[in-house]
Amino acid sequence: MMTASEVRVRYAETDQMGVAYHANYLVWCEVGRTDFIRQLGVTYAEMERQGVRLAVADAQLRYHASARYDDIVRIETRLTATQSRSVTFGYELVRVAAPGEPNGVRLASASTMLISISPEGRPVAMPSHFRELLVSGLGVPD
Amino acid sequence: MMTASEVRVRYAETDQMGVAYHANYLVWCEVGRTDFIRQLGVTYAEMERQGVRLAVADAQLRYHASARYDDIVRIETRLTATQSRSVTFGYELVRVAAPGEPNGVRLASASTMLISISPEGRPVAMPSHFRELLVSGLGVPD
Amino acid sequence: MMTASEVRVRYAETDQMGVAYHANYLVWCEVGRTDFIRQLGVTYAEMERQGVRLAVADAQLRYHASARYDDIVRIETRLTATQSRSVTFGYELVRVAAPGEPNGVRLASASTMLISISPEGRPVAMPSHFRELLVSGLGVPD
Amino acid sequence: MMTASEVRVRYAETDQMGVAYHANYLVWCEVGRTDFIRQLGVTYAEMERQGVRLAVADAQLRYHASARYDDIVRIETRLTATQSRSVTFGYELVRVAAPGEPNGVRLASASTMLISISPEGRPVAMPSHFRELLVSGLGVPD
Repeated sequence: MMTASEVRVRYAETDQMGVAYHANYLVWCEVGRTDFIRQLGVTYAEMERQGVRLAVADAQLRYHASARYDDIVRIETRLTATQSRSVTFGYELVRVAAPGEPNGVRLASASTMLISISPEGRPVAMPSHFRELLVSGLGVPD
Repeated sequence: MMTASEVRVRYAETDQMGVAYHANYLVWCEVGRTDFIRQLGVTYAEMERQGVRLAVADAQLRYHASARYDDIVRIETRLTATQSRSVTFGYELVRVAAPGEPNGVRLASASTMLISISPEGRPVAMPSHFRELLVSGLGVPD
Repeated sequence: MMTASEVRVRYAETDQMGVAYHANYLVWCEVGRTDFIRQLGVTYAEMERQGVRLAVADAQLRYHASARYDDIVRIETRLTATQSRSVTFGYELVRVAAPGEPNGVRLASASTMLISISPEGRPVAMPSHFRELLVSGLGVPD
Repeated sequence: MMTASEVRVRYAETDQMGVAYHANYLVWCEVGRTDFIRQLGVTYAEMERQGVRLAVADAQLRYHASARYDDIVRIETRLTATQSRSVTFGYELVRVAAPGEPNGVRLASASTMLISISPEGRPVAMPSHFRELLVSGLGVPD
């Protein structure tokens, strides 16, 4: 299973190099992850109200090309691994082809590993129903 | 009473116009406000643990000149009004003179009114000890 | 003429009060303004390539209710005044009603005045074709 | 050579989990990197005016503990590799011990690889004088 989300680059997200500041890619990954979980049939907002908290424990990003102001960025999100207390998402960020452009451009690849924590911040097993939803997302071909 | 805080403009805070993005000035005001409250003898972090929550209800900003990457910005914070449920801060943002420059440059003036709310989000009177601290800050000449 | 834009509140945009941090509303206004200008038949990105730069000179915000994570916020943008070197936009930010909710909730009202500046940062008259586009936007009823 | 920078966690940087949002750590790394380069005897702002542009090409972060509002975070920055067109920095982020606490807490470890690009965005060799400064920073023991 893969979900695709789109964001348009905001002026606030650019820097004086004239491109989107690199830390924003992590925010866009969060947008992708939120949509992925929604697609599984639950919202992260609802999960959090039930006491589930997923904290980012590891993040890796490779930047291939720059996103610019007003570009539309597509975030392709996949679940790449899940364990009792953690879940790993992979992301491909692509600039959507503008009118007249033949192809989109691959902007970045990223991966984040999240750990399930209690409200006090200790690692805890994810609730089984959420774990099952994730496993179902893992098994479905794109 | 007036407190002065300093922040150095981060690359992340610039935009493709080559200056600090305007919304960051509100964040710098928050830095000034936090320092002002600390100077009164309490931290906002501690106040929040005691159940006080101050939500921004009104913000006004006038921009006079641009802050640039690596500039040092001084935030001068004053308490300009306080009522049972609200408190108003005024800010002057100034670029600190770089070596060789005769004077700093006035960047912006701002004002924020904050309302005391309960954890559920309803306006409530501020705890009297905090109110008294504020009133003391109001009365002290700069 | 009025344009409506929508953003979904990102986790990155929340703060520990459990609501969207107040400075983000200025970013959402920028999203609304960008869409408004696009609706006039030009993009701000293109305008900037032609040498037009609009710098925020004044911003005013009134916060009525809090936006929360995953809320959909609608930004209604209007042009409220235009002069040779400046343009003023007004915004109404509304939380879109969630399924089962009867009505949306008014979150904030805002206004920003922007000044046309040269690449060196001096106020300059806006190019006449852009000025005419703006005037056309001003005249069209919603 | 190692430089130490300090930032105080801003309310704007927290999220509704009550901790600093994970993308901010990349911004703090940028603060550390800027200070490291300043310590070499040049500022990145000045380098950029001379046409040097360093774009982040790869970023890796491991999060060990959470930073909270008003915490002081120390960023320890080292240069870990340099090549003709790229430079790699390593970072240790530590929460400075509060009064009464015996020790600081390790928050995160990170690494960013930056590529020297031309104003048009193509990889180019770094100017030799900047390269030499970097090599000098590499050779100096902490």
